[in-house]
Amino acid sequence: MNPIDQLTVLLSKLPGLGPRSARRAVLHLIKHREKLLEPMAASLKTVMETIKICEVCGNVDSASPCHICTDEKRVTNQLCVVEDVADLWALERSNIFKGGYHVLGGTLSAIDGRGPDQLGLPKLFTRVQEQKTEEVIIATNATVEGQTTAFYLTEQLKPLGVSVTRLAHGIPVGGELDYLDEGTLGAALKSRQAI
Amino acid sequence: MNPIDQLTVLLSKLPGLGPRSARRAVLHLIKHREKLLEPMAASLKTVMETIKICEVCGNVDSASPCHICTDEKRVTNQLCVVEDVADLWALERSNIFKGGYHVLGGTLSAIDGRGPDQLGLPKLFTRVQEQKTEEVIIATNATVEGQTTAFYLTEQLKPLGVSVTRLAHGIPVGGELDYLDEGTLGAALKSRQAI
Repeated sequence: MNPIDQLTVLLSKLPGLGPRSARRAVLHLIKHREKLLEPMAASLKTVMETIKICEVCGNVDSASPCHICTDEKRVTNQLCVVEDVADLWALERSNIFKGGYHVLGGTLSAIDGRGPDQLGLPKLFTRVQEQKTEEVIIATNATVEGQTTAFYLTEQLKPLGVSVTRLAHGIPVGGELDYLDEGTLGAALKSRQAI
Repeated sequence: MNPIDQLTVLLSKLPGLGPRSARRAVLHLIKHREKLLEPMAASLKTVMETIKICEVCGNVDSASPCHICTDEKRVTNQLCVVEDVADLWALERSNIFKGGYHVLGGTLSAIDGRGPDQLGLPKLFTRVQEQKTEEVIIATNATVEGQTTAFYLTEQLKPLGVSVTRLAHGIPVGGELDYLDEGTLGAALKSRQAI
């Protein structure tokens, strides 16, 4: 395969790019050689050489343990459990949570062969006990798989004497009621707060 | 800036990817190190080292002159003028045209400072005369800029004694009349053919 087709095939495997947009992207790269093609080749090499998966929480960072796990300003008595690194990054952008994380890397799934070991749960439980965690916030997705995993986690964590919480359901900030499903509206109504 | 953010910024400059999808793409790359990250770094390097712009037609290929310009099975008495390399590739995929190409690299634009020289028109005119071209097919886009450029080209090419044609307007194959604009329908009606 010629180099252009090869790069097109690789780019088309990225989420958000199909074969057609990958072809456009390749042309764009070739046309902007100095500003895009060369920096991107260098950048991919750097990422390849420096990026590690944090041995403590599963975050993706240039160091292991990652900058969150080694940040002394963060509290150690709170742990937030997320499905994916992208979720961790999303929560970090909100700039509210100041505890540690545990990235599951997916949800429990008998079909896909993901049991507690694959999600690093033994490591999580050891960590909860060793660093005397007081609260575990379960931030799995609000999907069936996410909820099942959350339920299992709660069952396992409660006996360890730790308080288990989950993210609130409700109306997204800026959201319009008209466009929301009944489940979300119902949850928002149930959890209504005094103003 | 850390390597992940750097790669995210670069990827978000590709057409079709925004900041959010670029971040997802970076994570996807890191998660599929062997299958995607490493091959892509290698592939970008290969493209960087081997891809040239054809000195004859402006195509992007691993050789200059490109494989189209050096293909002896192709006719030299027909030349197709396109705005962009992507247009050339699109025409090649249709597998109908067997002549040579000239890539303008844009349209005539006083505002953006693109005159005949920037579009390589002197080179095109010399080529038309030297290789005794009989027909120039103008395949610029059906936009105002594309049509203006086509008009200018026609004016310049006619005195060289070459026949100048343009792609037919009409209903796209598989297209539904109901969804087409009046301009296209009008053109299709005017150019109706006996069956």
